[in-house]
This record gives sequence, structure tokens and C-alpha cells, in this order.
Amino acid sequence: MKEEMPYKLQLTEKEIPTQWYNVRADMKEKPAPLVNPATGKAATLEELSQVFCEELAKQELDNDTAYVDIPGEILDFYKMYRPSPLVRAYCLEKKLDTPAHIFYKFEGNNTSGSHKLNSAIAQAFYAKAQGLKGVTTETGAGQWGTALSMACAYLGLECDVFMVKCSYEQKPFRREVMRTFGANVTPSPSDKTAVGRKILQEFPGTTGSLGCAISEAVESAVTREGRRYVLGSVLNQVLLHQSVIGLETKTALDKYGVKADVIIGCAGGGSNLGGLISPFVGQMLRGEANYQIIAIEPASCPSFTRGVYAYDFCDTGRICPLAKMYTLGSSFMPSAIHAGGLRFHGMSTILSELYHQHLIEARTVRQTEVFQAAEDFARCEGILPAPESSHAIKAAIDEALRCKESGESKNIVFGLTGTGYFDLVAYQKFNDHDLTDYIPSEEEIAASIAKLPKI
Amino acid sequence: MKEEMPYKLQLTEKEIPTQWYNVRADMKEKPAPLVNPATGKAATLEELSQVFCEELAKQELDNDTAYVDIPGEILDFYKMYRPSPLVRAYCLEKKLDTPAHIFYKFEGNNTSGSHKLNSAIAQAFYAKAQGLKGVTTETGAGQWGTALSMACAYLGLECDVFMVKCSYEQKPFRREVMRTFGANVTPSPSDKTAVGRKILQEFPGTTGSLGCAISEAVESAVTREGRRYVLGSVLNQVLLHQSVIGLETKTALDKYGVKADVIIGCAGGGSNLGGLISPFVGQMLRGEANYQIIAIEPASCPSFTRGVYAYDFCDTGRICPLAKMYTLGSSFMPSAIHAGGLRFHGMSTILSELYHQHLIEARTVRQTEVFQAAEDFARCEGILPAPESSHAIKAAIDEALRCKESGESKNIVFGLTGTGYFDLVAYQKFNDHDLTDYIPSEEEIAASIAKLPKI
Repeated sequence: MKEEMPYKLQLTEKEIPTQWYNVRADMKEKPAPLVNPATGKAATLEELSQVFCEELAKQELDNDTAYVDIPGEILDFYKMYRPSPLVRAYCLEKKLDTPAHIFYKFEGNNTSGSHKLNSAIAQAFYAKAQGLKGVTTETGAGQWGTALSMACAYLGLECDVFMVKCSYEQKPFRREVMRTFGANVTPSPSDKTAVGRKILQEFPGTTGSLGCAISEAVESAVTREGRRYVLGSVLNQVLLHQSVIGLETKTALDKYGVKADVIIGCAGGGSNLGGLISPFVGQMLRGEANYQIIAIEPASCPSFTRGVYAYDFCDTGRICPLAKMYTLGSSFMPSAIHAGGLRFHGMSTILSELYHQHLIEARTVRQTEVFQAAEDFARCEGILPAPESSHAIKAAIDEALRCKESGESKNIVFGLTGTGYFDLVAYQKFNDHDLTDYIPSEEEIAASIAKLPKI
Repeated sequence: MKEEMPYKLQLTEKEIPTQWYNVRADMKEKPAPLVNPATGKAATLEELSQVFCEELAKQELDNDTAYVDIPGEILDFYKMYRPSPLVRAYCLEKKLDTPAHIFYKFEGNNTSGSHKLNSAIAQAFYAKAQGLKGVTTETGAGQWGTALSMACAYLGLECDVFMVKCSYEQKPFRREVMRTFGANVTPSPSDKTAVGRKILQEFPGTTGSLGCAISEAVESAVTREGRRYVLGSVLNQVLLHQSVIGLETKTALDKYGVKADVIIGCAGGGSNLGGLISPFVGQMLRGEANYQIIAIEPASCPSFTRGVYAYDFCDTGRICPLAKMYTLGSSFMPSAIHAGGLRFHGMSTILSELYHQHLIEARTVRQTEVFQAAEDFARCEGILPAPESSHAIKAAIDEALRCKESGESKNIVFGLTGTGYFDLVAYQKFNDHDLTDYIPSEEEIAASIAKLPKI
């Protein structure tokens, strides 16, 4: 160690990265391109620019530029909440009585409560730079919608959020945060779009779905002047922006003379994990270092561990471009009993290709053990973690306990993506012993995989 | 300026204070002592030690020791979430187009969501050091109860929280955070105490009150073995612990070469304001510097600005010692329409004496303008503030706009005590234009002041 290690491996404002890192540049086998379902061919810049901002469409397609300058206005925004803390989990280590050293990169210390803000401000910035009036998106649990509304408020951009109706009603607090930041929040399905009106006519009592909300958001973006659609995960551009997490983590570890052995992140669409591991995977791809990288997914939605690597729709509404990814099939419906997020049927194409190349491995955890780990962590580290992040906590604890058995002093680094302030209904269920586990059957997964598009 | 000023005037872990500062030591006229209502005399160490932990009772009575060493275990806990950020509000300054420089000390970046944790860990530590099994308290809105349950979980101490029944039912999320940290949360009035059973018999449908919850907590503490009662504000000991806020603020300002001109804090019981200003007031008392210090209170509960300086009960149940303070009378009932906290009828005896000596001034703000300031602040600074803290934001904005008129570049420092994650019902009312202002009539205040105890 270069100096005595504090609780927080602190960086200064000047150590915030000024460039994002694009891991695709160092990949020999590139991730497969998005495909336009109408043409069956790789989506062009022109096609993508009808839905996304032009600069973001360029970033989506750029597999070659390793470092992208972060515009000054985005950097200024980052300075309000970054560098985020990399914390040495001294108390957790003591509680586990492990020789392992545990570190977590905490992205929850901003009002949106998660890492989503890193990409929200970038996407909003490029929308404004293009002269757009506003952006449109959907949100389920609400982390992404909150982050986007904060970014838009800061830049003076309109923000339209289609929020799945049952969440709109059951998560009024998330909705009110977005409204406080000036967003127009619409329960979906709504009568604001053709697709919404159609669904309302067919299913008058429906409480909505993420697929339907995506369809409304995309329609609303492409049919109104000066708007584009934005998305908070899965896409290459999002992983590029989220590389700020990994770059800061690496700078801090280097500063304090720590070499990571194991790097762990939860994986839903892949934005957090992809951001955290990018610079480390870059070293592996360039032959400079080696790490054990573990993606943690819920047993109820095991895209990596039980899915197939194939082209599929990103949305259940089947209107977005096709992506090649590990997927359970876009018709796979994650169990409603799962309280812990990470319910996306597919996975980022970049991470899918890295997994396919065996650069990262994947494990599943069950939600009851995830919430137990969350409670243990909260009680000693003083942070109430988001259920999504708690998947990584559970895996980090398992690794640390393995070190206890083997006597190894591994350096375990995991991503703590956000806080659980808006997940207290789930915590209440756990406190009341009302949470159970769900593991989809072979038949269930086979049935949805059988419906994959033919391409 | 010693160096270019960043967004966050960062301190290192080594710059966390290792001693608390006791402003009473530098006061020539000391704050008036607590009085035992049974004897009519100053409460003794022995009397106070029946209710409070002994070391805390000593701290309560010690008007002479200027610096108190912070025990190592408390310091280790502080290292998990301190130093808290002192932020230069560049974006707010730009929005207001003011030549003033605005700084805020943000105490909301911990899971309890407020500064209360600074004293909770200290009080829990001394309880454990005394060999107690646990501590008992009451909570209304829930910030103090959350902080205390976190501290107790960390130290392995039992934590019993009597939560006003209507809050228990209307704020289930606060309740669940406390339960996640292992606290026993009981809706008050309950059948666990004699006073609770008596009230339930007299008023079967009552939803409780803070006064009743205090009575239950104190009874539960003094009648069960190995327990003591703890309180989150008002007391001298609490202001001592909260001095860590002001000490860090002063260290950071000194480090970056900033001399504060105006220091602003919201004032309910006084724990935040007292902590923030202590070292600055100390300089004033020693004749070393001068500052304009402004306490901000809600127009609906104006203890400083419309109360009298007299001995009064701290609780509506009239079972606690009497304190000399600026008070509206312990029978004053703050309007139920007030959503913004700070509803205590009295004020810390230390702050009361400082106000009496004209070392600090006080102003009132109305809740509708407070929430408008909160929204403006959130949209440019990216933090959703607690309604309590937003009283200080409103006043800081007013000061900055005055500087704009006068052309002065004052350095304005204010305390941002916490986040508004658990106050979204109030934000919703503001978003829906359902908030109104309430200002108590002269007659209302005179009636409750007429009921002050004769001493």
C-alpha cells in the first residue's frame, strides 16, 4: 500500500475522468451491430438518427475510438456529485471475519439515487446540443426517469416520461421526484399516442407494461417535432458514458496501490456492470492484466446463465432494433414476485460478446438471500442498498467467505449502484417474511426462446 | 483564494475533527440549567443519570470544557460518511445571477438522510460503554429514529422507537428503514406502557402525539433494566456532538481561503444550527472574528421571533425537565397543515441564550416560498432537499438576491441538513398546488404562553 488506507479511497475533482473509455475499440471481435427489423440489415446512422440524437447514434456505431472527450458542460455536472466514493468495507470485513479486502464503488450519493445519472446528463446534453426541445423515455421502477428529469431540469430541456401505470400508482414518490424536477409524467398506456389508445381500447383495465411504455415513448419521440427517444441501459452509448464509474475506480485503486482480484457487478441491461468493468476488461484485452469478473443476475431472470446468444428484440413491444445478445426471449415475463429489479430479458451486446469470449463469468442469486445480504450490509456499512445492487453485495460476501476458508487476502471490488429509498415496499415484504423465490422452469424459458425472431 | 475553488471544498479523512467543540466554554453568560419540575431546582447529575446515560448527563452539565475528545469508535463510524461535502453552489449562483458566493454543508449523504446521525452514534456509543442493553426514543417524522436505529445496529444495541401512530401508518417507508436496521418500532400510544394504556383507555381512537410518544419512551427507558432515554435535538449534549458540522465547515473554508460573511441554518430544536455555528460563534465570543448568523424558522412555529424567553417543558406531556428557552409554550400546537418540519414549540437553551445576547438573529419564512426555493434548488443543484433544510435555502437565496441589488460579493454559508426522499407527500402537495401557509394569531400564541409553568 502506498499510504495508510482510509475508509474512502478519495479522489479529487481534478481526478474525475475527462474522457470516456470505449471498450469496443480494444475488442478484436466486435459486438454484433443493431439490426433494423424492416430491412434485416445492420441499422445505419441515418436510421438510428430518426430515433436517437445524432451524436448518440454515432457513439452507438463507433467501435473504434478508444477515448471520447467528455464535453465541459457534462463535466461540470459530474463535478456536482462525482467523484463517487470508493469505500473500503472495513466493517463488513470485520463482521465476516475475512482476510479478504472488500471495496465498493458507491453510485447512490446523488438525488436520482443511482448511476443512471451518468448517462442521463450525457444524453440530455447531446439532445440540447442538437437544438432539440426535449427527450422522451419510459420508466418502470423509476430510477432512469428520475435521473433523466434531473438532467433535463439542469439543461432546461423538456422531459416526457411514460411510466408504467401500475408503477405510477404504486410508486407515487418516484413520480413526485420527477414532477419536482419538472418532467411530464404520463401513466402508460395513455391516450396521448396511437399505440396507447389502441391498447386502452383492447384492454380497458390494463395497468400497463414496460413494452407498452417503450412503444408510447418511441412514438411520442418520432412523431413530435424536436424530440428524440433516450434509453437508460443496454445500448453501447450508455456503457460508454458509464465507463466513468470504472475509470474512477481504477484511478482510486491505483492511487492507493491496490490491485483488484475479483470485480463484481449486478447485471440487468448491463449499464452498471459494463461501466464498472470497461477499463479493467480493456487491460485484459490488451494483455496488460487479468481479473476475475463476475456478472450477477437474479435467478428469476437469468439471461447469461440460462439464455441463448441470438438476435432478439430489446422491447416486448418489438418495435426497437434487434440486438444480438444473451436473451431469454422478448416474450419472457419475469416473475411479478421478484422485487429486486434486473428484470430485463436480454443483456447489453457488449457484455454479451465479452461473456461469449469468456472474459467475464456469470452467476445467479435468489432474492431472499439478496435481501438478507442487503440487511447485513446496511447494518454494518450504514447504507441502505438498492435491491439491484444487493445482488452484487450477496456475491461479494460469498467471495469473502470463500477467502475466509482458503485464507486468501483477495481484493474484491463490487459496484454499489444505488440506494433503496424507493424500494421500501420490497424491504417491508422481506421484514415481514413475505418474500419468496421464483426460478423459471426449463419449459418456460424454452417456450419464450422458441419465439425468437428468425434472422 | 489559495487555489482554484472546486465544486466541493473537499477535506480528507484525516481532517475530520477528533474533538467536539463545546461553545458553552466560551460563553461568559452560560445557558440556564435544566430544572427538575419536582424540586424546582437545577437538575443534578444524579437526577439526569436516571433518564440519560451518565456520560451524556455529564456532557449536558459541563459548561467549562471547550474541547471533548471524540472516542475512536465514534470516529471510525464518522469515517464511513464524513467528512460531509461543503459545496460551492455554482449553479445556483449562476441561476440567481448574483455576485454572492454561496456554499452549503450537505449532511444528507448518509442513509439516515440527515445530520441526526452525528449525535445518534455518540449517544449509542456511550450507552454501550455504560454496559446498557439498549436505548429508547420517540420519533415523529422519523429522521431521528432512523439515525438511532442505524447507530444501534452498528454497535449491536437494542433500539426501541415509539413512533407517533399517525406517522407509523402514514410513513411506512421510514418505519421499514428502521425495521431493516433492527429497531423495534411501536405505534404510540401503545399498550406497552402505563401511560400508553391510560391514553388508549381515555381516547380509544387517538392517532397519538409527540408528547405522548415521549412519555412512553421515557417510561419504557426508566422502568426497564439496562435502558436509557435518548433525544435527537434541543439538549446541550446534542449540540456538542453536532459541532462536527461546524468544525468541518470551518476547516474547509480555511483550507480554501474563504471567510464567511453570513451563516444561515434552519432552526427547529436547534441541533443543526447549533452544530453549524458553534466554532464561528466561539470566534465571536473570543473576539477573533465577526459573522452575521441567521436562524430561520417557519412562520407557523416562530419560537425565536414571537416566543418569550422563559422556563418551559420540552415536551407536551410535561414529564421532562424544564428548560429556559425561547418558547411558544408547550401547549402550542403547530398547525397540521405545515409540511415542513421544525414544529417544536421551544428551542435549544444554548441557542436561546446566544439569541438573547444578540449574537444570532432570526427570521421566519412561509412554507409555500420554502417549497418553491426547494424546487429551484433541486433543479439546478441536483439535490432534493428536506423541507426543513429548505427553510435555509430560501433565506440563502434571499441574501444572494440582496447582494445582487447591492453588488456585494458576500460569502453565504448555509446548512443543508438532509434529503427530502421521505417527504414526497409534502412535495406532491406542492406540485399539486395544495400547500397553503398558516401564521398563528397573536391570541393563539398568547394563550399558550399564558400556560407556561410558574418558576
